[in-house]
Amino acid sequence: MSPLDTLRSPLAFLQDRLSAIPHVDLLAAEQEWWKIEGVAISDTIDHAATPWVRMFDRTGRRVDEILYPREYQTMLRKGYRSGVVWRAFEEKSLLPTFLLMYVISFYDPGICCPYTVSLGTALPLAKHGSTELQARFLPQLLRKGDSVWQGATWMTEIGGGSDLGAGVKTIAWPAGDRWLLTGDKYFASNAAAELAVVAARPEGAPAGVRGLALFLVPRYREDGTLNRFIRRLKDKIATRSVPTGEIELRDSEAYLLGQADAGIYLILEVLNLSRVANSVVSVALAQRAMADALSYAECRTAFGKRILDHPLLRRQFDERLRSLRSAFALAWESVRLLDQVWMERPPYSERYHLFRLVAHLAKYWTAEFAVDTAKWAMEVHGGLGTLAEYGAERWLREAMILAIWEGTSHRQILDGLEVMERKQAHKTLFAQLAEVAPAAESREMESEVERLLSLPPDQKEAEAEAVFKRLAVLSADCLSRKYP
Amino acid sequence: MSPLDTLRSPLAFLQDRLSAIPHVDLLAAEQEWWKIEGVAISDTIDHAATPWVRMFDRTGRRVDEILYPREYQTMLRKGYRSGVVWRAFEEKSLLPTFLLMYVISFYDPGICCPYTVSLGTALPLAKHGSTELQARFLPQLLRKGDSVWQGATWMTEIGGGSDLGAGVKTIAWPAGDRWLLTGDKYFASNAAAELAVVAARPEGAPAGVRGLALFLVPRYREDGTLNRFIRRLKDKIATRSVPTGEIELRDSEAYLLGQADAGIYLILEVLNLSRVANSVVSVALAQRAMADALSYAECRTAFGKRILDHPLLRRQFDERLRSLRSAFALAWESVRLLDQVWMERPPYSERYHLFRLVAHLAKYWTAEFAVDTAKWAMEVHGGLGTLAEYGAERWLREAMILAIWEGTSHRQILDGLEVMERKQAHKTLFAQLAEVAPAAESREMESEVERLLSLPPDQKEAEAEAVFKRLAVLSADCLSRKYP
Amino acid sequence: MSPLDTLRSPLAFLQDRLSAIPHVDLLAAEQEWWKIEGVAISDTIDHAATPWVRMFDRTGRRVDEILYPREYQTMLRKGYRSGVVWRAFEEKSLLPTFLLMYVISFYDPGICCPYTVSLGTALPLAKHGSTELQARFLPQLLRKGDSVWQGATWMTEIGGGSDLGAGVKTIAWPAGDRWLLTGDKYFASNAAAELAVVAARPEGAPAGVRGLALFLVPRYREDGTLNRFIRRLKDKIATRSVPTGEIELRDSEAYLLGQADAGIYLILEVLNLSRVANSVVSVALAQRAMADALSYAECRTAFGKRILDHPLLRRQFDERLRSLRSAFALAWESVRLLDQVWMERPPYSERYHLFRLVAHLAKYWTAEFAVDTAKWAMEVHGGLGTLAEYGAERWLREAMILAIWEGTSHRQILDGLEVMERKQAHKTLFAQLAEVAPAAESREMESEVERLLSLPPDQKEAEAEAVFKRLAVLSADCLSRKYP
Amino acid sequence: MSPLDTLRSPLAFLQDRLSAIPHVDLLAAEQEWWKIEGVAISDTIDHAATPWVRMFDRTGRRVDEILYPREYQTMLRKGYRSGVVWRAFEEKSLLPTFLLMYVISFYDPGICCPYTVSLGTALPLAKHGSTELQARFLPQLLRKGDSVWQGATWMTEIGGGSDLGAGVKTIAWPAGDRWLLTGDKYFASNAAAELAVVAARPEGAPAGVRGLALFLVPRYREDGTLNRFIRRLKDKIATRSVPTGEIELRDSEAYLLGQADAGIYLILEVLNLSRVANSVVSVALAQRAMADALSYAECRTAFGKRILDHPLLRRQFDERLRSLRSAFALAWESVRLLDQVWMERPPYSERYHLFRLVAHLAKYWTAEFAVDTAKWAMEVHGGLGTLAEYGAERWLREAMILAIWEGTSHRQILDGLEVMERKQAHKTLFAQLAEVAPAAESREMESEVERLLSLPPDQKEAEAEAVFKRLAVLSADCLSRKYP
Repeated sequence: MSPLDTLRSPLAFLQDRLSAIPHVDLLAAEQEWWKIEGVAISDTIDHAATPWVRMFDRTGRRVDEILYPREYQTMLRKGYRSGVVWRAFEEKSLLPTFLLMYVISFYDPGICCPYTVSLGTALPLAKHGSTELQARFLPQLLRKGDSVWQGATWMTEIGGGSDLGAGVKTIAWPAGDRWLLTGDKYFASNAAAELAVVAARPEGAPAGVRGLALFLVPRYREDGTLNRFIRRLKDKIATRSVPTGEIELRDSEAYLLGQADAGIYLILEVLNLSRVANSVVSVALAQRAMADALSYAECRTAFGKRILDHPLLRRQFDERLRSLRSAFALAWESVRLLDQVWMERPPYSERYHLFRLVAHLAKYWTAEFAVDTAKWAMEVHGGLGTLAEYGAERWLREAMILAIWEGTSHRQILDGLEVMERKQAHKTLFAQLAEVAPAAESREMESEVERLLSLPPDQKEAEAEAVFKRLAVLSADCLSRKYP
Repeated sequence: MSPLDTLRSPLAFLQDRLSAIPHVDLLAAEQEWWKIEGVAISDTIDHAATPWVRMFDRTGRRVDEILYPREYQTMLRKGYRSGVVWRAFEEKSLLPTFLLMYVISFYDPGICCPYTVSLGTALPLAKHGSTELQARFLPQLLRKGDSVWQGATWMTEIGGGSDLGAGVKTIAWPAGDRWLLTGDKYFASNAAAELAVVAARPEGAPAGVRGLALFLVPRYREDGTLNRFIRRLKDKIATRSVPTGEIELRDSEAYLLGQADAGIYLILEVLNLSRVANSVVSVALAQRAMADALSYAECRTAFGKRILDHPLLRRQFDERLRSLRSAFALAWESVRLLDQVWMERPPYSERYHLFRLVAHLAKYWTAEFAVDTAKWAMEVHGGLGTLAEYGAERWLREAMILAIWEGTSHRQILDGLEVMERKQAHKTLFAQLAEVAPAAESREMESEVERLLSLPPDQKEAEAEAVFKRLAVLSADCLSRKYP
Repeated sequence: MSPLDTLRSPLAFLQDRLSAIPHVDLLAAEQEWWKIEGVAISDTIDHAATPWVRMFDRTGRRVDEILYPREYQTMLRKGYRSGVVWRAFEEKSLLPTFLLMYVISFYDPGICCPYTVSLGTALPLAKHGSTELQARFLPQLLRKGDSVWQGATWMTEIGGGSDLGAGVKTIAWPAGDRWLLTGDKYFASNAAAELAVVAARPEGAPAGVRGLALFLVPRYREDGTLNRFIRRLKDKIATRSVPTGEIELRDSEAYLLGQADAGIYLILEVLNLSRVANSVVSVALAQRAMADALSYAECRTAFGKRILDHPLLRRQFDERLRSLRSAFALAWESVRLLDQVWMERPPYSERYHLFRLVAHLAKYWTAEFAVDTAKWAMEVHGGLGTLAEYGAERWLREAMILAIWEGTSHRQILDGLEVMERKQAHKTLFAQLAEVAPAAESREMESEVERLLSLPPDQKEAEAEAVFKRLAVLSADCLSRKYP
Repeated sequence: MSPLDTLRSPLAFLQDRLSAIPHVDLLAAEQEWWKIEGVAISDTIDHAATPWVRMFDRTGRRVDEILYPREYQTMLRKGYRSGVVWRAFEEKSLLPTFLLMYVISFYDPGICCPYTVSLGTALPLAKHGSTELQARFLPQLLRKGDSVWQGATWMTEIGGGSDLGAGVKTIAWPAGDRWLLTGDKYFASNAAAELAVVAARPEGAPAGVRGLALFLVPRYREDGTLNRFIRRLKDKIATRSVPTGEIELRDSEAYLLGQADAGIYLILEVLNLSRVANSVVSVALAQRAMADALSYAECRTAFGKRILDHPLLRRQFDERLRSLRSAFALAWESVRLLDQVWMERPPYSERYHLFRLVAHLAKYWTAEFAVDTAKWAMEVHGGLGTLAEYGAERWLREAMILAIWEGTSHRQILDGLEVMERKQAHKTLFAQLAEVAPAAESREMESEVERLLSLPPDQKEAEAEAVFKRLAVLSADCLSRKYP
């Protein structure tokens, strides 16, 4: 078997990269389902483009139902049943979740968004929610059947998602045992969710991120009427397996999670979880694009031989496979670290800061790699790559969204810079890499980082990209040596 | 005025880069029309996606009309009237054509395809057509009003466009003073054209590219019925301003251009013209993507200031502007050279071989740059970049097609390799660059090329990409020093 | 010339039916423009389906722009320039308006909706607005150039449009020299209008229709921000030339027209104007469907002859032409009467009540006839009639909307019943018909009406349809004898 | 239970109308499946509009796959499994087929087309195919599992479907044990079928319908390549559950059914089967439209009460229910008669001619009733009826296709006239009606028919419609008295 053969299946690649995988049978069954059923459903959803919202039923009652082709539910529920959310809590480990996500997102990168944000709802509830809130809402999120509730994490408003301190204008008023929220969320993923965690500013709280709190907002009020409205769904270029909408909160009933003045920590925990998921999905997508390119290069002939046997293309496959392995190693390192720290609360450990740095490196680099690989795979398809008919172009659309949501490269670079500067997380990283990194290279990189950190602020920011990119590539390459 | 300000208008950028520009008033008027009228039309066409074909009229007569929003004709004809085709022949220079194309493709990269293939039809007719054929068909292609005919260049069949020798299965039978062609063209740009140049193999001609001939095929037979059929239009992800179809030739009336056994030279002349156009369009598209990113970065605020004033982003703008100038210099060098050699016939001069090398470098590098810039510009838009609503995503779709049609990077690299190997075109290139290139860098590059050329065939091909890329970047950077 | 030839052009039919037509040159020019330009634009708009709303610009400012193919504006403004609104006030006659509408709606029935509601905004302003309001807003509505403002008439809410007394929940609060309106309009035609007349209930006003008032609501507040929001556009099956939306009023600045307690009269005046327009448009649409069927029947052959020459089909053409003339006569009678009474105010004259009855008969019957004719014309096209490609199916979609908006047949029948019962309007009608109706038939009809009116309420309503239909047909047939 | 309650379910209506129904459990299960699964799938298919054809796979092989949302197959196969085709042969009765079709088409009128044409393929094969052909192809059409083959009946060409004698230009050449067919079919329902019956003219056969023969054409040639090509799918306004395409036959392998000179009989047998199916589907569709109107009228309130309780609307419901019952009786009479004569061969019995007359009356009248009912149901929905969102408009689109395919009203009237004139089928009909028809009415109708038949040809045709319509209504009303 050629090393390229591991490209053909996500589980084969996982097995090639990881020494011991729990739940192999589960993963094999998931993969099989996608091959036989899921692929065709996913194509249908992508072709159907933006789903529609039915705002009112025939009697004039506001309902805000999202209307998908019916089989969307089949595809969506498959992952929940397999345990992409409930296993994390039952097994007290995130590994099953991310293994499942890798397999699933090889076939549909967008569908992992609902899973991620459902986990991102259950997690703060389980960590920071009162006993009463947990009893009231957690079981629904962890159901194993089709009645499972979905979660959602709604932070971004029209002013932008990077600068949440300035961007979040939603206001929360206390109202007895609950709060009432009013505001508009502009990029609200999984708009149909039964429960959402929502960033808002309690009336009178200070400006900036320190004044933010995190709330739980159910779909329906206690009296059974809608608790939030879908103004419209976004016409996105991809990830059509997750409905992203604009949400209107109008005196919406809400429940505070944790302390009102510690919301920013909860928000960042949720975001960091998403970034790890984004990294795993990005690598799986890159593998998928390569798998499609491979099967095409095997069946297409030019100048008397398969195009796979043209030396230029063959060289590209070999090199890109190496890069895929590196990208995977970086993403999986963020998974491993998160799995160790996900239950930490402030003040966080050194390991937590290491996790944050690795998560920023991974989110940044795996998305770049996914975009570049999807572009390359389209080109391998030649003219067919420009047609909607053959699907090669889809992976580039999907990859572009992965590169943008959960923070573009700018956000990752600057936040990575901050955790190095404030928490010295790079030192922990270099210590970790020592066992696998060539010493000279590692030393040179470390001093480059130190030089960067010593620059005046504006210059530091201006020069950060090149250093951060080299650090990501070096870390990825080194980490890939740790895998079989 | 900041250097970034030249990004805002294609003419401003041309004036900044070129010392003397003919027809400035014409270009200014063209730019003005696009700002006021064309932009909105172009958006409509892109949103309308694939146009439809009306195959039969109500009486059952086959008509194969392509149905666009009506204003498409307004947009299309604008360029023809301005002289994107006729000026080349009247002024005996291609400069007006490519200057117009630069301005136009800043607003709509796809619309330059009809112009290019119309020129690519008129050119072989004017160079290689008999006096009688020229008298019969050339005037229509050079009309200055709305009755102008469009041309088209149909080579590729289902077997692929790279290996034309194997791919072209269309057969030509002699039939008195004309030929009859039967075959299927798979990527037929400008499917509505009144006249097309078509690659076919005369019955009994040898296999491979040497057996190909080039024919002129009118839309209608002499008896007024359709001479070729549009089986369907391709559902492309972009360049919707040019209808690309599958064409069925069924005993279609055709006229031979040049000698039947020299067709491959004519075909390559047409292809090389297209590659130069592709390079010009790629640079204009990159400028446009940057212009949009700039206007967004000026109006968007985060952390208390315009995002343009964030050092990381500002650095990216400055560096990318430098790269844009280099890419432009490379593309324009291919224009300048083509303008000197476009009337050459075999055997070609040394300058012609230099042109071919520069054209391959330019087609390859400007498309890469356009894709990378369009991706970056989407990311500058953050979440808005993922929405169909704001247009930022369009430039990436358009750029991907520019990177694929007229030959992907593989094709350019391998053909560039061949012209260096067989014609020593790199030597002429290095001689040209001597006046502007740093001597050491240039020497090092030259020996790297020589080393590559000396490798055994398979290894040479496998290692070609890295060398070709460095050669492209070096050439572009050096050439950009020649411009004001 | 065969009588069927008058079907081919709206102006030819008008000239055949009306003895003296003002502005023949204007109408001829309008018709010519549509043939050459408008038809293709109208097709584009219908194919483009629901336009999109851009809710926010790139800076996050709410803008609620409706994005049409650009040439929509060309088509829309054509009618305004020709005077479909301003002539009514300048010439103090509605005849030019309805003559223009007949010609225009032969080509596009939907585009007359913006014209009608613009007139329906200017009219109450001119009749009932204060001098100051008129000075402030009327000139913009009557401009002759492209800067003309559009109007809109927003009454219906989610609870339904028939029972406005119960359906209108929008509340108006007094606020100094203006009012502030809050509520949601569910079927808001011409959602992009600069100015709308809006039904609302002043706080504290009685329930039911007597508590309604009519307000003028500009698109922008005095401070330049949006004064009302487009929640979304409706995905209608036709009349895509008018954007119909859901409108959110949120403390929207508004100006009272007339007395707060007389709003229902103003509302009904506006509605009655719309019904007359609807009748004219319905007849023009029926003519258009017949014209298309005719041209098809002339070019299609079966069993050795044109299908027009098959006796069964020929008979249908002849009979339907007679019905078209009757329907036109009924519609035009409503125009003539409206032209006499449009400046009346309560208490209304007997002639006004006659107008109301004729308007109900005309709205009801012309829409029924348009639907039936469009269905028949589809069938004449055979299989082609079922395809989107050939346009025959469009007229049925358009006709169905004409049959529903401005009140379905139920509404017309019951309101017609009321004006007969309360105002004895049928007596005036029969007096008018006397000169042309066969005496026996007329007497019989009158006693049938009287019998109906004498029934107990529930039975009267249950049996009303059959009587009303016969009355409509009789009136139409009789009136058609009055025309040349 | 109110009589209106039978509208709510197709099985309830069947049980109310027919004294003994076989397979009630099967029908109940079918109905249940549609309520729970099928309705949502059917909506998806209708919204997805025209499916796409993938003409070539990635290797360039022509494949002509029709790409539907994946769940289309689930819906399609449901009916085949339930026995809509195989039961006819196993139970030697068409009743189970038409009972199933009634239930199914209440939910999706279009999906019964594949079933009908599959039956219309199996039937001539079973009646007229050689033993060898039957052995080779019949078992696949009668499979009970998902591997069942579908059939198709392709007659119509671009010249039109009414005048098959002139319209069919497809030529058949004998080629050993088979034939080769070349021609284009313009309205080819169920374009994906594995087997089709195709009308063609053997080379040298006489002009007109007498020269037509019927052939069996498999999807694949014996060598495994495609035997016919889908040029494109038609963009129909409805019945999107059946893909209708244009089919190219190019030396397509074919097998003769029956005698080459008796093809027209086989063709007409197939068409008459389709007309009966069309009648059953039309009535079910009318019931569905009424059921939707009913549920809306029960939940919508105006003027203080449910709109169902408004006397005018209530009266319409009651009268329309009576008409529905009549239409059903007429359609079911055509089913009963067909069930008695479907195995007849020429020369046909008197009963067969009666069947033909009733089938024409039923096809004509049930389609008219379906269109009228769908229009009315839209109007009951008021404004919501004009929106794509609520589905009311779908039934009108579907009904219009039922009124057109299998022959418009013109065709039914003229063919009905012929069978009365040539075969005196009206005499048999009046004899049958005698037991239930009021004697005077029946006598008057009969003499009216006789008077019509005695007119000169052109006048007869011109006056036929009114008489045929009265005959249809009378027959329907009378027959409805025969049902419980």
